[in-house]
Amino acid sequence: MTLIAIEWDDTAGRGGRGAVRLLDQTQLPGTTAYRSIDTTSDLVVAIAELAVRGAPALGVAGALGVVLAMDEGAHEGWDDTRVQAAIDRVRHARPTAVNLAWGVDQVRALVPQGRDVVLEAARRVATDDEAANRELSRLGADWLLSRIDRARLRVLTHCNTGSLATSAWGTALGVIRELHARDRLELVYADETRPLLQGSRLTAFELAADGIPHWVQADGAAASTILRGLVDLAVVGADRIAANGDAANKIGTLGVALACHDAGIPFMVAAPWSTVDLSMADGSGIEIEERSGEEVTVLAGVRLAPEVSPGFNPAFDVTPARLVDAVATERGVAEPRRGIDLNSLS
Amino acid sequence: MTLIAIEWDDTAGRGGRGAVRLLDQTQLPGTTAYRSIDTTSDLVVAIAELAVRGAPALGVAGALGVVLAMDEGAHEGWDDTRVQAAIDRVRHARPTAVNLAWGVDQVRALVPQGRDVVLEAARRVATDDEAANRELSRLGADWLLSRIDRARLRVLTHCNTGSLATSAWGTALGVIRELHARDRLELVYADETRPLLQGSRLTAFELAADGIPHWVQADGAAASTILRGLVDLAVVGADRIAANGDAANKIGTLGVALACHDAGIPFMVAAPWSTVDLSMADGSGIEIEERSGEEVTVLAGVRLAPEVSPGFNPAFDVTPARLVDAVATERGVAEPRRGIDLNSLS
Repeated sequence: MTLIAIEWDDTAGRGGRGAVRLLDQTQLPGTTAYRSIDTTSDLVVAIAELAVRGAPALGVAGALGVVLAMDEGAHEGWDDTRVQAAIDRVRHARPTAVNLAWGVDQVRALVPQGRDVVLEAARRVATDDEAANRELSRLGADWLLSRIDRARLRVLTHCNTGSLATSAWGTALGVIRELHARDRLELVYADETRPLLQGSRLTAFELAADGIPHWVQADGAAASTILRGLVDLAVVGADRIAANGDAANKIGTLGVALACHDAGIPFMVAAPWSTVDLSMADGSGIEIEERSGEEVTVLAGVRLAPEVSPGFNPAFDVTPARLVDAVATERGVAEPRRGIDLNSLS
Repeated sequence: MTLIAIEWDDTAGRGGRGAVRLLDQTQLPGTTAYRSIDTTSDLVVAIAELAVRGAPALGVAGALGVVLAMDEGAHEGWDDTRVQAAIDRVRHARPTAVNLAWGVDQVRALVPQGRDVVLEAARRVATDDEAANRELSRLGADWLLSRIDRARLRVLTHCNTGSLATSAWGTALGVIRELHARDRLELVYADETRPLLQGSRLTAFELAADGIPHWVQADGAAASTILRGLVDLAVVGADRIAANGDAANKIGTLGVALACHDAGIPFMVAAPWSTVDLSMADGSGIEIEERSGEEVTVLAGVRLAPEVSPGFNPAFDVTPARLVDAVATERGVAEPRRGIDLNSLS
């Protein structure tokens, strides 16, 4: 998988000042198209529309957004207050994933040192993320293989956590790739992930590109697939992980965790340390983004429900630590269900 | 809701011999169209395509299918063996719902007495089903209201179990209607029910027609809606219920049951006695229909996943009795989780 979800393009942008180049994930898997973005307002729109999504990729978007604000401000003659306001709009474009604000905060303090310093730091956010993903994938795979006695593992995952959701490689999908690279993967059940189908559109796309055997299934099938004994574990990403191990992730994750708990198989969250929010003791304070109900009631222009029926569309759920067997990060693997929480890795 | 899912139409059919008139549910909610069916092979196709679906409605389809086979046989000059073979094809058009075979068996023994006797018995299957639905809805509502201390209940349901799934009134949706009629219903969360969206297409349609407040949500949202305390109970239908209370129902039901169990709120199955299969001690013997993977990977002609990604599409799951608080039937309410199984009502 060589597609890069988001990066800085020195050759684009008004007046050749550079631009954010992002793969428009709303059009996958049918069309591979890119957006060249050189204003913060276009970046905010791209984030809101999920043209770029996935917590680690949003971290990169946040960092690059600071560069955009500086360039745009220089071009438009903004004062510092206005530049900072533009940065804040990027920082708050979506509420649940901590990485977006984290990415902004990684580089914001460097603004007085000039945009080249900020750009270099933003690019380091991306390279650091890839390194973190590879390390957490290695540690996550080690943890699983030391606990599951089977030659090749059957894995269930929810949403998309691969290259498309990160700077490169992936988190939960990184663990899956690591298992595949070690020839220890049998197959993957990919939940389609309604309403926006990141599983069928993006995860299946990445798995197919890598030649990893997989099925796409309705989200409602996950509990049955797990309780029928068809999988050995589930691994998912996260948008924010509280200190105790409560983990916010794409809506539908909680149901996967409940089924794993009932079946007695491991439920693993895989995420870089940038997704861990130790300022939150538990998940009760995590803001859950509620998106338009039409994402549920309309698909590809086709109305699925009566006009008068509203859609209820929380974008995330919070899986309580008591259901989380492992959190694989580049710093090590926490085991919240056993009381070994994220503080143990800090 | 005055739409009738399936009935006999004396005025239609080749040579005026009568035909099955069924509402084509594949076209709802956009289009209200009927199919007039006067051959068993067309009935088998309609059942396979889910133009008619829902366990109780399939019971009526099975019974009327015997009439069709007799009429078709008389018209085509079939011998009895061929008529019986046609009846068997209807009986086995789908494997999971016990009602289809049950409906056939209700009237098949009457074949020697002539088609008018069979037709009268088949019509009685429908009227008996409506009476059963109304009674089980009354008993189910009584059970819930005696256990949940709240003026108006917030209910989650999965798939469609209303008039469109039965001869009239409904099973789980019948319980919801009964609560609404008693002014004890606050609102309904209707799972959209992927892959074929019976929740958003059909349940929302029925709820809207009755003026019952409701939200449509992705199936993956159910666990979170339940654990966040937004609902007081879940009630679903069934396609086959074993003696111990193990219940096969639309894929995704099991996840609802797991969440209710975790949250400590009632999970109720509502079904007429015709759905109970006492010949099965438990659910391990229930055949789970696996349907085309394209139902998952293609929607309204739009391909959702890469061409090379196969869909895994079990149409049903089996919720174990240990997660079923109540089974409401017209004979009374069993409580499998407490060990009061279906034998107690026989």
